[in-house]
Amino acid sequence: MGNVGYPAALYLLLTGDLPSRSTARLFEAILVSSIDHGTTPPSTLAARTAASTGAPVNAALAAGLLSINEYHGGAIEACMATLERLAETEGRYDTREAAAEAIVAEAKETGVRIGGFGHRVHEHDPRARRLFEIAREERVLGEWIDRLRAVERALAKSAGKALPVNVDGAIAAVLEELRIEKGAANALFMIARLPGLLAHVLEERRTQPPMRRIDPTAAEYDGPTGRTEAEGSLGDSEHG
Amino acid sequence: MGNVGYPAALYLLLTGDLPSRSTARLFEAILVSSIDHGTTPPSTLAARTAASTGAPVNAALAAGLLSINEYHGGAIEACMATLERLAETEGRYDTREAAAEAIVAEAKETGVRIGGFGHRVHEHDPRARRLFEIAREERVLGEWIDRLRAVERALAKSAGKALPVNVDGAIAAVLEELRIEKGAANALFMIARLPGLLAHVLEERRTQPPMRRIDPTAAEYDGPTGRTEAEGSLGDSEHG
Amino acid sequence: MGNVGYPAALYLLLTGDLPSRSTARLFEAILVSSIDHGTTPPSTLAARTAASTGAPVNAALAAGLLSINEYHGGAIEACMATLERLAETEGRYDTREAAAEAIVAEAKETGVRIGGFGHRVHEHDPRARRLFEIAREERVLGEWIDRLRAVERALAKSAGKALPVNVDGAIAAVLEELRIEKGAANALFMIARLPGLLAHVLEERRTQPPMRRIDPTAAEYDGPTGRTEAEGSLGDSEHG
Amino acid sequence: MGNVGYPAALYLLLTGDLPSRSTARLFEAILVSSIDHGTTPPSTLAARTAASTGAPVNAALAAGLLSINEYHGGAIEACMATLERLAETEGRYDTREAAAEAIVAEAKETGVRIGGFGHRVHEHDPRARRLFEIAREERVLGEWIDRLRAVERALAKSAGKALPVNVDGAIAAVLEELRIEKGAANALFMIARLPGLLAHVLEERRTQPPMRRIDPTAAEYDGPTGRTEAEGSLGDSEHG
Repeated sequence: MGNVGYPAALYLLLTGDLPSRSTARLFEAILVSSIDHGTTPPSTLAARTAASTGAPVNAALAAGLLSINEYHGGAIEACMATLERLAETEGRYDTREAAAEAIVAEAKETGVRIGGFGHRVHEHDPRARRLFEIAREERVLGEWIDRLRAVERALAKSAGKALPVNVDGAIAAVLEELRIEKGAANALFMIARLPGLLAHVLEERRTQPPMRRIDPTAAEYDGPTGRTEAEGSLGDSEHG
Repeated sequence: MGNVGYPAALYLLLTGDLPSRSTARLFEAILVSSIDHGTTPPSTLAARTAASTGAPVNAALAAGLLSINEYHGGAIEACMATLERLAETEGRYDTREAAAEAIVAEAKETGVRIGGFGHRVHEHDPRARRLFEIAREERVLGEWIDRLRAVERALAKSAGKALPVNVDGAIAAVLEELRIEKGAANALFMIARLPGLLAHVLEERRTQPPMRRIDPTAAEYDGPTGRTEAEGSLGDSEHG
Repeated sequence: MGNVGYPAALYLLLTGDLPSRSTARLFEAILVSSIDHGTTPPSTLAARTAASTGAPVNAALAAGLLSINEYHGGAIEACMATLERLAETEGRYDTREAAAEAIVAEAKETGVRIGGFGHRVHEHDPRARRLFEIAREERVLGEWIDRLRAVERALAKSAGKALPVNVDGAIAAVLEELRIEKGAANALFMIARLPGLLAHVLEERRTQPPMRRIDPTAAEYDGPTGRTEAEGSLGDSEHG
Repeated sequence: MGNVGYPAALYLLLTGDLPSRSTARLFEAILVSSIDHGTTPPSTLAARTAASTGAPVNAALAAGLLSINEYHGGAIEACMATLERLAETEGRYDTREAAAEAIVAEAKETGVRIGGFGHRVHEHDPRARRLFEIAREERVLGEWIDRLRAVERALAKSAGKALPVNVDGAIAAVLEELRIEKGAANALFMIARLPGLLAHVLEERRTQPPMRRIDPTAAEYDGPTGRTEAEGSLGDSEHG
């Protein structure tokens, strides 16, 4: 307490070791990137739905967690599986590029989803860009991020249009660089997102009538329009 | 990402504002204090029990969260209620001391539990001491911690023996100083504890046979026996 | 097995005794009345939302259960509380009528909800009528149903328009006649509703694309338009 | 209500059709066979653990449901998979016997569990025997029960000792005869078991101190020692 930051303590619990400073900074950036995503995700809808019937906070959070599965929150793990498959098979091809193209072709045939690319809203996901920036500052850009780029190029070639790396893909590559086991990736997303779910649940209870018909697309932002500099200055040394 | 720490982002979601640096440090210390408590808490037993039947990670975590209620994880909120009652009533007494004694007497009569004092294991809870230390460094020791001490003295007088402030009591007072709403305290504990639950679930899946009869008191620590200095040096500037 | 019906076994688990034949029949009618209510209830939305993210069946059912609380599924218990309060206080009034009016007036003042009356859709809830019909056949119409009617009249007088007993009110009165404890009423509703939730979850998985935006009001019935007589003839002796 | 029994209504929701009278009777016997199994199953432990921390009833039931997975409650589905595999492959062998032996040998090699045979407590599971008895009375003993027996013989031959069909195996064969889809079998078990979980939760709240250390093997039966004839006579015509 007071010595080791919460992300570092989380890393310790997951891996059995304390992280280096730069690993801790990346780990924390991943957590922050996923802390909330507005009212539209299914986990938010489930948590708010439970809350609107009068559920206590933990029950509403549990309903939210139970809605984080393969199709929501599962893209990080799916992308890690793709990258690991590339790492296993690339020795059998002349180039990593060729191996990536084979994997994309195979996925197309079998209907397997390759998570971590493209986005409904963002053309270039700003969270992916920011995470790579920090990874560059902390000098952990390595083979896994290179593999991610190889898959990105193979997907673009196969689809005939760009499907840029999104935040899930960026997290997947960074987690591989940090040697976090694939099976913990979804859970990491759950831990990261719980505060967001909590904020939705508390807001639902405080501001909405019970049993309202919830339209996830009808919410409007009603917070402050900007943050003061004093608050912004917080940023430059937070990496617990 | 990379600018605002995860605890600060959590504080933002709960309160609508970014914390000051010292508030962020305290907030993070609270999270770290509660991140795990070994194999004996009921939330851990429920999460491991679900995991041992083959539950996916989120289902096991949800079973754990559903076991955090009034009697487990509820002491922070109960203690905050006591402190708030003291703040409301102390104006009617000559001294805060007298008001605290009246509250303790009333609780005794009505059978209401006063959370935040005494501990099965620790005579003096080291986590409480450490949290107060940090609070002193960050200059947030104020009226609420004074109220906590008044209740501690009143309890000792009434019980005829010391019932020292434990970690829940310390967190309660610090949350009051930080103006976090009482209704969010249990949820804060859930967020803090989720990584611990996750570590138990992953360990259960990795190392234990399915459907074993779980004895929460039979676990033995099998991790490393000490942390190196290099790791320890992490500590001095982590407060995201 | 083969001797005692499932509703009778459920009654045994709740009360410690096997029910009489007529009690079993009423108990089963209550279960059937609540087995499903289409796509609009929040518990259905939560269960389908979880299912649409790829949740296993039990996780989706749990998300549904967690959305059955005070405002959804809680009217039976709320109505039982009102009836019990009437039973306790009516001795102090000249007539039951007067006692009911006092309770309605008090509820209006304190903002307490009286569950079990009025309905968004049904002017006269056909499930209430049917349950009373069976209760009459089985000769269990007694004081509690009389109390329910007294509250119904008091409500109409106070509101200036009819607020007829709905299915929750009818169940509340019958459960009181059967001496089921109030604290089990919500759980009884959960048990009754679980098959409905399951049918929604299985349908969601079988017929809908993952992560669809669910509009609870947009569902249309696509089942058979009528049941054959052969099937209908089942009815006359089922009361396990 | 009053016409169609609850098990028949459940069958309707699962299959889209009302059951015949004999199907309804079997379906109900299956539900009754699984309604409770004392304090030792993990789902009971999870539900009681949540209840002992002060969880509301639905949260405790949800914790129980989340502990019904592959290794607890999953044997019915696993056995159905084995029987279906036998049905698919037996055409390629001279006899069903030979096909069953091949499946058992394959399972041994690959480490796949064949659910539905053997029991920790019962040498001959009385629930299996009773279910077959009813199936015989209702004339639904067919090919699937014959397949179950073939696997039982193949297992005995392979293991060198009898591994008699248990209740899960019996249910699996009967569900196949009734053409219930395999994916609904676990959920059927959950529906059947919910009343048992509820009884445990209510008992935990009513009779046990909060936060007790629960030892699932230390419970003792404290109910009545026998049922009167009057109650027993209930049995002969319950099949809703």
